[in-house]
Amino acid sequence: METLKKKILEHGTVLPGNVLKVDSFLNHQIDPVLMKEIGEEFAERFQDKKITKVLTLESSGIAPSVMAGIALDVPVIFAHKRKSLTLVDNLYTAEVYSYTKETNNEISISKDYIHEGDNVLIIDDFLANGQAALGLIRLVEQTGANPKGIGIVIEKGFQKGGEMLREKGFQLESLAIIDNLEEGKVSFREEGNSSQ
Amino acid sequence: METLKKKILEHGTVLPGNVLKVDSFLNHQIDPVLMKEIGEEFAERFQDKKITKVLTLESSGIAPSVMAGIALDVPVIFAHKRKSLTLVDNLYTAEVYSYTKETNNEISISKDYIHEGDNVLIIDDFLANGQAALGLIRLVEQTGANPKGIGIVIEKGFQKGGEMLREKGFQLESLAIIDNLEEGKVSFREEGNSSQ
Repeated sequence: METLKKKILEHGTVLPGNVLKVDSFLNHQIDPVLMKEIGEEFAERFQDKKITKVLTLESSGIAPSVMAGIALDVPVIFAHKRKSLTLVDNLYTAEVYSYTKETNNEISISKDYIHEGDNVLIIDDFLANGQAALGLIRLVEQTGANPKGIGIVIEKGFQKGGEMLREKGFQLESLAIIDNLEEGKVSFREEGNSSQ
Repeated sequence: METLKKKILEHGTVLPGNVLKVDSFLNHQIDPVLMKEIGEEFAERFQDKKITKVLTLESSGIAPSVMAGIALDVPVIFAHKRKSLTLVDNLYTAEVYSYTKETNNEISISKDYIHEGDNVLIIDDFLANGQAALGLIRLVEQTGANPKGIGIVIEKGFQKGGEMLREKGFQLESLAIIDNLEEGKVSFREEGNSSQ
């Protein structure tokens, strides 16, 4: 997605440890117009999947997901990273290991909003090792619904998550795939070469 | 805002301790169409304030804020509730006391996105004692920008936050004001009577 790649090149910052900081339009400040374009792009890429629910993870997944929800005309559910006061019972939970922080986090959704027969589109801001996506898939599987696809804003193609999810047979659509961040420079994978 | 009040009556649940649970369209599952209407309503109510930035708090403030950002054509910043890995320096911070949880939480924004001269619209999902709104105001004040107004989706009118913020002279626009939740029933304040 060219507008996204342009934005990453112009406003992204590469930090030590292969961290791409996109706080100026995605993870802290949000560019709502870009989010709308991203949401519409996801809706188009999954238009034949009869999506009935979008599932994402707080907080950075929410903006692109709500825009996809508008475009697909379906509700959006965001998984919580910790249990909240009004959501202590009635939960599906999954463990997500963070390689960056070397910790296990629990993510959860209520049992009320995704059910057997739902076709769920999973959306997240970043894909690196794929642990968050796997956690979201496990949540969907517990509900009895179908995980019909995964939409990612930025995939770190040099980490193993994308390959792992594609090998499992999921339709994974990443709007920008970064092949490396060497020497502080962002190099994108060419379009149509997502299986690389 | 009638569509919001109707949604609260149809899908809100009153829990013990004056808790109104609106997880089915705002705090966990999100109704994107309603969020769009809410964002447009905020944009209209603050249309003469020359808003240049929307500031909210993760996670439930993000969806209505992004929709307001689209309608106002300005960026949205969401304050973090904890420090994140890529945001350790360069922060403005404020303490927010939670009466519900009886804890102090730190909220923070980067120094990069709100500056002197910005006209900031603060948006949040709920207003009860006003501590989160005060924390967001303190963040804006540290930047040197102007807090031009506060947009709230649901105000608990029987708690003191609304009165306190109106007395301080802020333009506070709450799209639904609840006067009480007695006997598990939601009673709204009548429109045009926000100073009650």
